Amino acid sequence: MVVPDRASRRSPVDVLVSEVGPRDGLQSVAATMPTPLKHRWIAALAAAGLREIEVASFVSPRRLPQMADAAEVVAVAGEIPDLTVLALVPNLVGARNAVTAGARSITVPVSVSDAHSRANVGIGTDAAIEQLATITGLTRDTPGLRVEVGLSTAFGCTIEGPVPEDRVIDLAVRAAAAGADAVGLSDTTGYADPSAIRRLFTRLHAELGDRAGGAHLHNTRGQGLANVVAALDVGVRTFDSSQAGLGGCPYAPGASGNLVTEDLVFLLESSGLRTGVDIDALLAAREVLAAALPGEPLHGHLADAGLTKGFRYAGGPGGAAA
Amino acid sequence: MVVPDRASRRSPVDVLVSEVGPRDGLQSVAATMPTPLKHRWIAALAAAGLREIEVASFVSPRRLPQMADAAEVVAVAGEIPDLTVLALVPNLVGARNAVTAGARSITVPVSVSDAHSRANVGIGTDAAIEQLATITGLTRDTPGLRVEVGLSTAFGCTIEGPVPEDRVIDLAVRAAAAGADAVGLSDTTGYADPSAIRRLFTRLHAELGDRAGGAHLHNTRGQGLANVVAALDVGVRTFDSSQAGLGGCPYAPGASGNLVTEDLVFLLESSGLRTGVDIDALLAAREVLAAALPGEPLHGHLADAGLTKGFRYAGGPGGAAA
Repeated sequence: MVVPDRASRRSPVDVLVSEVGPRDGLQSVAATMPTPLKHRWIAALAAAGLREIEVASFVSPRRLPQMADAAEVVAVAGEIPDLTVLALVPNLVGARNAVTAGARSITVPVSVSDAHSRANVGIGTDAAIEQLATITGLTRDTPGLRVEVGLSTAFGCTIEGPVPEDRVIDLAVRAAAAGADAVGLSDTTGYADPSAIRRLFTRLHAELGDRAGGAHLHNTRGQGLANVVAALDVGVRTFDSSQAGLGGCPYAPGASGNLVTEDLVFLLESSGLRTGVDIDALLAAREVLAAALPGEPLHGHLADAGLTKGFRYAGGPGGAAA
Repeated sequence: MVVPDRASRRSPVDVLVSEVGPRDGLQSVAATMPTPLKHRWIAALAAAGLREIEVASFVSPRRLPQMADAAEVVAVAGEIPDLTVLALVPNLVGARNAVTAGARSITVPVSVSDAHSRANVGIGTDAAIEQLATITGLTRDTPGLRVEVGLSTAFGCTIEGPVPEDRVIDLAVRAAAAGADAVGLSDTTGYADPSAIRRLFTRLHAELGDRAGGAHLHNTRGQGLANVVAALDVGVRTFDSSQAGLGGCPYAPGASGNLVTEDLVFLLESSGLRTGVDIDALLAAREVLAAALPGEPLHGHLADAGLTKGFRYAGGPGGAAA
C-alpha cells in the first residue's frame, strides 16, 4: 500500500512519518531554541528524508515564548524543497497568522475530553468544533490550504480518566463535517493500548474513509511502538513522532513523551515499510538538535545501539535513496 | 485462550510472564547482589503474582561470580508456594549441579550463530545440540524435571549479522529431537522486527506444536514491546522479561537490555490478557531491587508514569487477585 504522499516529489513511501519535534518537542522544553538553530535543525531533518515536519505553533508568545518566532520558522521552512510544512493553530487568531506567514497545512487540536479542552485551549469541546468550522471557513478562501484535526485525549484523559469510544468517533465525524480535510487520533496522555488502537482506528476508517488521519502516539508508559504495530495492522499509514522523543510529558517525570522518530523509522524500515528516511542522516540531525539544546535529555534506543549488522532498508540496498 | 499454566495453583492466566531479572539481569551488572537480598527480591517478585522466575545460572563462579550462590538461591526459591523456579545451565556440569540443588526446571541456551555459541558457551552449535542430548539423558532419570531450550541469536547476531530462518527452524527441530520439552526463540541481540517475529514463531508452532516455547526479547533498539504485539498475534503466550529491564546489553551502552516486566505486564493487562500480576506489588518489588543494587540504573516507563486513571486489570475490578 502506497500512501497518497502529500510531499511526494521523491521516491514513494509506504508510511508517512510526520516529525513534530520542532513544535511539540520545543514547546515542551524550558529552553527556547534560537531561531537560526531551529532553521538548521529543520533543514537537517528534511535532509534526512522526512517528508513532513510540524515546525511551529501559532499560539500566544506570552503562553509559549518558545514559539514566538513561528512566522519566521514557517517562512524559512517553506523554502525547503519537497517538504510539507505543518503549523499548529489553537484558535482563529492563530489560523490567520499561520496563513499570513505562508503555512499551507495547519493542524487544529480538538480535545475529546471537555476538561482537557478547557485546560488546553480555554474552551470546551463543543466550542472547539464551532471554532474549527470558523477556521475552515477562513481557510477555504486560501486555495490549496489543508486543515488537519488531531483529536486529543482520544484514548483517555488524565483529568477525566477513560473516554467513551462513541464520543471519539462522534467528534471525528463532527470535525470532518466542520470542514477538516483529515481527522487523526492523538494519545496525548499515553493511555492507549493495542486493543483500543485497533478498535478506534477501524471505526475511524469506516466512518471517514480517506479523511481518516494518522496516529499521534506518546510513549509515556513505554507502549508507543507497540501501539504502532497495532495501528499498522488496521491500516494506519501516518504517524507523528519526535526526534529523540523530545516533548516530555508533564504527567510523567523522566518518561519520554512522543514516539522517538529514530526508533519508529527503524521499526518501519525493518518491517519492510518504506519511509524515505536515511537513518544515518537522521542521527546526524540528532547531533544538530543536541548542539542546539545543550543539556536537554535525548531519548530513544537506536541512537545508542546503532543499526543492526547487515541492516537493509525496506527499499533494498541503497536504502532510503533507492 | 488460557495457557496450560505450569505454575497454576492460583487464578488462570492468559499469558505467562517469566521473570528473568535474578538470572539474566544480575549476571549482567558489575555488582554482586548479596544472597539474602536475592532471596528478598525473588520473594517480592513472587508475591506480586509472577508464576515463574529464572533465579540463577549454574555457570562457573570464576566466569560469573554474581551467580556463585546459585544452589542456595534455587533451594530457597523452591520453598515459595506456587512458583516455578527456573535455572539456566550452560553445560552438563551445570545441569548436574542444578538438579542436585533441587531445580525442577532448567533452561539450556543453544546459539543459532556458531560464532556466538563459541563466545557464549565455548563450543559450536552442533556440539551444543549434542551436549543438550546428554543433558536430557541425565535429567530423564529425574521425574518431573523439565528442560527448556532458548535458541539464542535467533533473529540475528552481532558477529555474523543476519541468520538464515531455515537454520533457526532446523535447530528448533533438532533441539526438540534431542529431548527438550520446549524450544523458544531468543532475540539476544535486539535484532528482531515484527515481521520476522511473525514468520519465525508461525513456523515454530507449525513444526513443534505444543513444544514450541516462548519469546525472549530484548529492547536494545526500543522494539521490545512492538515485537510482543506481533508475537501475541501469532499465538505466543510466554514472554521472558526482567524487572526494571535489568540486563544491560554490552553491545549497546545506555540501552536497556531485556523487556521491562512492569511495562510488559501493563501492555498485557491493558490488552485484556490476564497475567496474574498485581502491578502495585510489582512496583514494590522494584523498590526492593533498587535498595539491593544501589546506584544501578533502572529502566522502564510505567514506574515513572504510574497507572492510568481508571485503569482496570484484564480480570476486571479487583484485578490480579480476582
